[in-house]
Amino acid sequence: MKKVAIGVDIGGTNTAIGIVDDLGNVILKDNIATPTDGDVDRYVDDLSIAIHELINSAKLVNPDLNVLGIGIGAPNGNYYAGTIEYAANLAFKGIVPLVKLLKVKFPELQAIALTNDANAAAIGEMIYGGAKGMKNFVMFTLGTGVGSGIVVNGDLVYGSDGFAGECGHTTLFPEGRLCGCGLRGHMEAYCSAPGMKRTAFELLVKYNATNSLLANKSFNELDSKAIFEAAEKGDQIANEVFELTGKWLGISFADTAHHLSPEAIFMFGGPTAAGDYIFKPTKESMEQNLLTTFKNKIKILPSQLKPGDAPIVGASALVYKEIEKSNI
Amino acid sequence: MKKVAIGVDIGGTNTAIGIVDDLGNVILKDNIATPTDGDVDRYVDDLSIAIHELINSAKLVNPDLNVLGIGIGAPNGNYYAGTIEYAANLAFKGIVPLVKLLKVKFPELQAIALTNDANAAAIGEMIYGGAKGMKNFVMFTLGTGVGSGIVVNGDLVYGSDGFAGECGHTTLFPEGRLCGCGLRGHMEAYCSAPGMKRTAFELLVKYNATNSLLANKSFNELDSKAIFEAAEKGDQIANEVFELTGKWLGISFADTAHHLSPEAIFMFGGPTAAGDYIFKPTKESMEQNLLTTFKNKIKILPSQLKPGDAPIVGASALVYKEIEKSNI
Repeated sequence: MKKVAIGVDIGGTNTAIGIVDDLGNVILKDNIATPTDGDVDRYVDDLSIAIHELINSAKLVNPDLNVLGIGIGAPNGNYYAGTIEYAANLAFKGIVPLVKLLKVKFPELQAIALTNDANAAAIGEMIYGGAKGMKNFVMFTLGTGVGSGIVVNGDLVYGSDGFAGECGHTTLFPEGRLCGCGLRGHMEAYCSAPGMKRTAFELLVKYNATNSLLANKSFNELDSKAIFEAAEKGDQIANEVFELTGKWLGISFADTAHHLSPEAIFMFGGPTAAGDYIFKPTKESMEQNLLTTFKNKIKILPSQLKPGDAPIVGASALVYKEIEKSNI
Repeated sequence: MKKVAIGVDIGGTNTAIGIVDDLGNVILKDNIATPTDGDVDRYVDDLSIAIHELINSAKLVNPDLNVLGIGIGAPNGNYYAGTIEYAANLAFKGIVPLVKLLKVKFPELQAIALTNDANAAAIGEMIYGGAKGMKNFVMFTLGTGVGSGIVVNGDLVYGSDGFAGECGHTTLFPEGRLCGCGLRGHMEAYCSAPGMKRTAFELLVKYNATNSLLANKSFNELDSKAIFEAAEKGDQIANEVFELTGKWLGISFADTAHHLSPEAIFMFGGPTAAGDYIFKPTKESMEQNLLTTFKNKIKILPSQLKPGDAPIVGASALVYKEIEKSNI
């Protein structure tokens, strides 16, 4: 029997579904629309049909498939309750008991579980990726926002209410930049992809850098990829964006390290494609900001999950943690 | 049989030893000098003799005493290794394998364990104090420095190397005040007792407040107790010190909450004697700095451990956690 797990990644407009083997490879995938009218019942019907069809298709190729369960990554996913709660970028109103609704549709499955996407990514890293065998690590996902998932003693930290691991919303500069959450000075406002863009424009202003490659794009056009390309061409503003972003990530990572003393901190997401441009200043800054006891111990590593499939793969990994727990 | 545990609190000049009953009461205690010449062997001899004598004295009163083990709180205590490592305010050189040395002296005891004092305080709160029954909480000890102990899923977080829980050394203001550790801007430099004194002098300077009750004491004389007394008399500078300290504690607590989503955050130590002067602005600031998901959920509570005995009581609680683990 070939063991597989279903991974579901719920985004604002699109829900990605994949069948993932026990090495973290997506062997078959599909997409359905995430409803914009907030109709939960129809969505659960659509999702169940899509999952059943995907399993049937996969069984045509390999009839010996053992589907272990369904793992779901969703914004504001509450692991304990199996619910999506007041997610700002989804049309569902209030609290959606998604796990309960899916259990009715898939009574035969061992495990159905849900968490937020960054927590799912952390579990994916632990089950299939670079954190295999690690008991204490933290995952940071850099994108439109900054998400995080914390693993302590081999288990994801959900905290008292299921929502732990919001390190993107720790304060870097009190009274600083406005964050997407409405509060100020959070590291997400500095170290996310849009944060890097804001830093680029701050530097253009500071130096009146009309000669920079970044000076010819509008505030809405510029993205972290363009900053990386400019840095590679030797653009000083672009290079300073990476230096500053790394400096700020390093301060933030040191704070997280002083809480948790992790073995490694993983970075995932668009900005990490810049490699040493981002990893080197981050590592240097973190080391500068660590207590002596912690220096030269904590690795900063790129995620080993494949960028495109990572949300599905991460979500599917939840299934293995659930089964592990139910076997204790 | 009356169950008791030995608590040992190792300080720079003095080591306090106590026999603690299962309700957290110290039933007998003693002190020995912590050597200033760094002689570990003599210290272990002295400590063992003192513990044996204390047990014998206690047994004269109650022959039915069941001594479960020894718990030790020490600066730079490494729980995993049972060692004290490069503690700046102790005369011992390098790494001292204290648990191993004591196990030779007390082969009959079920558990001998060691951690740092703030971690010991957190375990004390969980076993005997206000955190009974809580699975996720954080303890902050405010004194000369700011220590912390983190509990996740009912267990203390030691991290990958045994040193987790140094929240006092997270950055509040990048490039800010010099911290005792040599780095800059840490919350300890703002929210410890000496941090409050520094804030008082900052405000005296800012307002040229010659009329303040705090204006007649030298930088070396002023302490958090005097600031509290001045605040009670209506001194504006003293009141603003508490407002600012609470504001900063609240930012810091929100950062910790965004990591861990605890049920409660406990505060212990001298400055907490000021009650609402410190708790009220801290609570307000934390709520202001929390994501909506976390608002109005997390309690900020005073420690229920008795101030004088807390280090001994906290250390003794380690014994119960060790026995719990060995029974799994």
